[in-house]
Amino acid sequence: MRLKHTLLLLSPVFLYNIGFSQSNDSLMLRKITNDIMLNGKCYGYLDYLCNRIGARLSGSPQAAAAVEYTYQTMKSLGVDTVFKQECMVPHWVRGEKETAKILSDNSGEFNASICALGGSVATPPEGITAEVVEVKSWDELKKLGLEGKIKGKIVFYNRAFDETQIQTFHAYGMAVDQRHRGPSEGAKYGAVATIVRSMTNKLDDNPHTGAMHYVDSISKVKVPCCAISTVGAEQLSSLLKTDAHVRFYLKMSCQTLPDEKSYNVVGEIKGSEHPEEIIVIGGHLDSWDLAQGAQDDGAGAMQSLEILRVFKALGIKPKRTIRVVMFMNEENGLRGGTKYAELAKLNHEKHIAAIESDAGGFSPRGFGITGSNEVKTKVRSWANLFFQYGVYDFTGDEGGADIEQLKEQGANLFGLMPDSQRYFDYHHAATDTFSIVNKRELHLGASAMAMLVYLIAEYGL
Amino acid sequence: MRLKHTLLLLSPVFLYNIGFSQSNDSLMLRKITNDIMLNGKCYGYLDYLCNRIGARLSGSPQAAAAVEYTYQTMKSLGVDTVFKQECMVPHWVRGEKETAKILSDNSGEFNASICALGGSVATPPEGITAEVVEVKSWDELKKLGLEGKIKGKIVFYNRAFDETQIQTFHAYGMAVDQRHRGPSEGAKYGAVATIVRSMTNKLDDNPHTGAMHYVDSISKVKVPCCAISTVGAEQLSSLLKTDAHVRFYLKMSCQTLPDEKSYNVVGEIKGSEHPEEIIVIGGHLDSWDLAQGAQDDGAGAMQSLEILRVFKALGIKPKRTIRVVMFMNEENGLRGGTKYAELAKLNHEKHIAAIESDAGGFSPRGFGITGSNEVKTKVRSWANLFFQYGVYDFTGDEGGADIEQLKEQGANLFGLMPDSQRYFDYHHAATDTFSIVNKRELHLGASAMAMLVYLIAEYGL
Repeated sequence: MRLKHTLLLLSPVFLYNIGFSQSNDSLMLRKITNDIMLNGKCYGYLDYLCNRIGARLSGSPQAAAAVEYTYQTMKSLGVDTVFKQECMVPHWVRGEKETAKILSDNSGEFNASICALGGSVATPPEGITAEVVEVKSWDELKKLGLEGKIKGKIVFYNRAFDETQIQTFHAYGMAVDQRHRGPSEGAKYGAVATIVRSMTNKLDDNPHTGAMHYVDSISKVKVPCCAISTVGAEQLSSLLKTDAHVRFYLKMSCQTLPDEKSYNVVGEIKGSEHPEEIIVIGGHLDSWDLAQGAQDDGAGAMQSLEILRVFKALGIKPKRTIRVVMFMNEENGLRGGTKYAELAKLNHEKHIAAIESDAGGFSPRGFGITGSNEVKTKVRSWANLFFQYGVYDFTGDEGGADIEQLKEQGANLFGLMPDSQRYFDYHHAATDTFSIVNKRELHLGASAMAMLVYLIAEYGL
Repeated sequence: MRLKHTLLLLSPVFLYNIGFSQSNDSLMLRKITNDIMLNGKCYGYLDYLCNRIGARLSGSPQAAAAVEYTYQTMKSLGVDTVFKQECMVPHWVRGEKETAKILSDNSGEFNASICALGGSVATPPEGITAEVVEVKSWDELKKLGLEGKIKGKIVFYNRAFDETQIQTFHAYGMAVDQRHRGPSEGAKYGAVATIVRSMTNKLDDNPHTGAMHYVDSISKVKVPCCAISTVGAEQLSSLLKTDAHVRFYLKMSCQTLPDEKSYNVVGEIKGSEHPEEIIVIGGHLDSWDLAQGAQDDGAGAMQSLEILRVFKALGIKPKRTIRVVMFMNEENGLRGGTKYAELAKLNHEKHIAAIESDAGGFSPRGFGITGSNEVKTKVRSWANLFFQYGVYDFTGDEGGADIEQLKEQGANLFGLMPDSQRYFDYHHAATDTFSIVNKRELHLGASAMAMLVYLIAEYGL
């Protein structure tokens, strides 16, 4: 494209009327954004976290290194208080790289790209080989189960993302039940293992891991479970159409070790007028083990750190207390978020707002809000201040897993909503690396958060 | 991220009231979008254009192949009319890969990544070596020029993108004057060549080409001109700080051959009620020669093709005529756009709207509008129909270079505005390849265009 036109004149007057009282805020928000776009360190923090520390599953040495790195970074920013909150976390390890094959008497033998789901038990050392039954719904599974057609088989959950969902998180929400309870549902009817189609919009050969839960009330039997790449899922499904006796071989050596000690990392700037009113901002520090956890959730954690940096750099003294938290163990236990909420309750703290960034470091588009109608109305009255930054959508109710438990303590929850189109291309897969993060998008997300934090600190909720 | 929340309930009631008359439109727009997201061929078209045909600078065999490919594709879609519009286009060729070195007596010799700007003359076969003068403004150039400090030197234009501009097209607009008229401005004061910092937000070692213009009224001397990567620009600037006599060597063998015959490709679906009212939709088929021209503008051209596909696939009979145009030679001459406008005038055609997609295939965020206030008000009254698709911004005035000349014939101009953050990372550089395009983002852009086309065809302007 060449530039032929005059510059865009942003005049969202048909959306909202801008009152005089907002013009000072508008200047401050511009100042915050300019500083982040020109001097922000968020991208540099993420570079370190991804390229120097790397994958940091709870209980791993890398998770411990990430705790130390962010603790020292917060210290270096000169905020009022920096501390760690101890919590015990699960320690699951993948073991040797998984192997899998599709075996068809008609068509031959094919390697398949799989990975164990987080929390899965191992296969026996020699692996498991069994015929495959493909299902797309729980009804289908139940019907086959009651007919005895699941017993001794491997269940293959192959319900794909609904591509007509504009928000990819909706498509995820409509498919991820297969990953979560598929293993126990399969075991209930005698399955010996389960395979789930990777949770992604993209057709490629990367398997995507993620949490699953053995649910005792469904079945007390724990069967090995893995995710298969979407290309593998398509191939397996296609082979099953011509050969009902296709077998699958998988070998996994993952195991759950004793819980490890870990920490949330907390940094705080005390409020100048209402120090007792706390605004929590966070992302999670842990990631899955297959990649660097750049978008999930290095981005959100480092954006949260950036809030502290920009407030200190600009000498902004927030009227209410700002507390940034690097939550531990969001991916497979939520122990950090749970511990944080427990301590908040124990200490009779008053959390007026909790803001999480855990949907990627892509261009910000809005915030989900969970709170009273009054709070929603108040926040939406600020929307025109965000419009020129491409942040326009305050209609959703997204929050974040780590902050969810603060709701019952009266906190209003906010979730940063970035553009979601590319998120599941990388989510929980080996491709979630620093190289896929765009600096400006990441910094604009941090800026959107900083703006919201500033306004809440200034005006309360 | 794990999904902890209920699905997003989109309720933009605070933005607009949805009237009853819009509910049928809403259903039709959903149908159009669903078909594009599930069955769209846009991504496949772009794959072919990029990976089978490749870079297609005006006058090249690849540009001719792209004409033939899109002509045949339109034919295969079974639209009412498909034809070509002949036009003569410039034929500039890069020649051998350029070489360049930074030479400093203090610091040594360094290779530099450069590319000739489109339209540049060659250096002598032995290259040019001269001292470098860095400037960031025309005032600075003029001052140095009047002091005789430009004569015999190479001018290095190093005004960077303004990172505080949220829309990267604004930053581009504020810097690209250096590329356009830098060569003539330098020549005016006796420069022997000019270098310009690549037009990008990204710090990397890829040079970005683009058009320049020798302006006779500024200087009749044509000097060779190139773009240097941002990494190279930073290095050169840094060396100049400690050594004022840094020299630069460049060798380029580009040349302008005689004009070639080429074509716009046009496909039309006749309007059922007002066939005389024409809605033009387009992108440009030509690209720079360094890469596949995926985002610029394979994306926009193929999105336009997709409009024809989806209207035919769903059997939509538009009330007004829809005409999709693959414009030729946007990058270095605009001959296709000019020819199209000439013929429209000659044939007394009535173009009510012209819609261009030439800002990349990223997630759509809105449309710029150039038209009367009545037209803007009318289009903005449709905005709530777009909101759930992430398309919310109708405040800008972007159009498109190819359609610009239809304005004086009374056409209202519309430019698709995708998210702009990543666009200039790739623009006119070797990295603008198919692999950086996200299928869903591309298809959502096509969907936004198809929705706007549907509404204009239905209701006029």
